[in-house]
Amino acid sequence: MKIDIQTRVFAANELAAAENRKYLDSKKLFCLNMISSPGSGKTTILSKTITDLKGKMEIAVVEGDIQTELDAQRIRNAGASAVQINTHGGCHLNAEQVAIALKKLEIKGPGLVIIENVGNLVCPSAFELGEHAKVVVLSTAEGDDKPVKYPATFAKASAVIINKIDLLGHVDFDMQRVRADITQLNPKCEIVELSARTGRQMDRWYCWLTENTVA
Amino acid sequence: MKIDIQTRVFAANELAAAENRKYLDSKKLFCLNMISSPGSGKTTILSKTITDLKGKMEIAVVEGDIQTELDAQRIRNAGASAVQINTHGGCHLNAEQVAIALKKLEIKGPGLVIIENVGNLVCPSAFELGEHAKVVVLSTAEGDDKPVKYPATFAKASAVIINKIDLLGHVDFDMQRVRADITQLNPKCEIVELSARTGRQMDRWYCWLTENTVA
Repeated sequence: MKIDIQTRVFAANELAAAENRKYLDSKKLFCLNMISSPGSGKTTILSKTITDLKGKMEIAVVEGDIQTELDAQRIRNAGASAVQINTHGGCHLNAEQVAIALKKLEIKGPGLVIIENVGNLVCPSAFELGEHAKVVVLSTAEGDDKPVKYPATFAKASAVIINKIDLLGHVDFDMQRVRADITQLNPKCEIVELSARTGRQMDRWYCWLTENTVA
Repeated sequence: MKIDIQTRVFAANELAAAENRKYLDSKKLFCLNMISSPGSGKTTILSKTITDLKGKMEIAVVEGDIQTELDAQRIRNAGASAVQINTHGGCHLNAEQVAIALKKLEIKGPGLVIIENVGNLVCPSAFELGEHAKVVVLSTAEGDDKPVKYPATFAKASAVIINKIDLLGHVDFDMQRVRADITQLNPKCEIVELSARTGRQMDRWYCWLTENTVA
C-alpha cells in the first residue's frame, strides 16, 4: 500500500516535471534547482549573482519556503523577478507548484530560472521539478561530513557550491576530504569554493553559470 | 485519500510514541528529542555534554541519520552508549524505529536518553517519538531568519540552543531578533547561547539539563 501511493505520487510529479521542462525549453529558459540545508547561503548567493550579472544574463527566481515572503523580497531587492511558493509545512517543492510559479515569472527567454528549494538536504532531491541541472550548496560551517551523510543529494548535483570559505580557520572543515567524498559519489560534479558574503571567488561560479546554462 | 493515509501514519506513530513514553517512564529515563538543520552541531554538543557530565548524569544516545555510523561512533568515543538508526533516505525518525533502538541502549535508569534526530528543520517536528521534551539547535552560521521561516519546529521546543556563538562577528546574525522571534512563537521556550566547539557557556546548557530532565 505504501509503495503504491508513493509510486503514484512520484509518477504524477514526473509528468508535471516533464511539462515544466517543455515549457522552459520552448521559452529558451535554462533552469537550475538549488538545494541545501537551511542557512547555507542560497539566497545570499542568488542576490549577489543577480546584482553582479545584471545586463549580462537574464535571471528570474522561484523561491520555495515553508512560510514567509522574505527570500522573494531579497531577490526583488537585488533586481530580479521572483515568485514565492509557501509550502505551509511541506518539506520540498513539487513540480505542480513550480508549474504555477513559472507562469507568473516575468522573464523573456533566453535566460536563467533558478528554483531555490525549501532548506532541506533530504527530500528535495527526490522530486524532479523539470530543471536542467541541480546545484547543491554546502557551507563550511555545516562540517565536512555532509556528503557521506546525505549521499543521495550530492550524487545528483551537477555542481556543488562550497560557501562561506571566509569562515575557514574558524570552523572544523577539511576541504580535501569534502572534495574527495563528493568526487567519489559523483565523479563529474563541479565543485566551486566561494564566499557570497565577502564576494570572494564568485567569478568561479559565474564561469560555471556562463558555460553550463544554455537551454 | 491523501488525508486518510496521513492520518493513519500519524495515528500509528502516536501509538508507538505513547508506548515509548511508558517504557522510558518505567525505567526512570528522561528523554529529549534533539532537532536541527544538518551541521548545526548536535553531535558536538552531545559529545561535549557526555564528557563534561561523566559521573554526574547517566546519558545514552539514539542517533538518527540517513546513512553512516559516524555520529554513533563519535558518541561512543565520548564514553556513552549509542545506537545508530539509519533511515536510508527517510527524512525523520519515527516512534517505531526509536522503540527498537531504546531496547538496545545500555543504560540503567535514572538517567537521560537523547535522541539526535535526522538533520532536518522541517519533518522531524511532526513525529512524536515518546520524548519528554524537544530541544532545537540553531547555529549562528545559519542566519537569523530561521525561527520565522521554520515556525512549527521552533514553536514545539522546550529549549533552543543557539550554537557557534564563537562565530558571532564573522556571520550576519542578530541575536536580539532571534530571541524576539522565538519568544513570540513560543513564550515559555528557554534560549541558551553557547559554543560547543570552544566550550563557552556550556554550563548554561548543563544547568537547563539538570533542572529540567527528571523523568
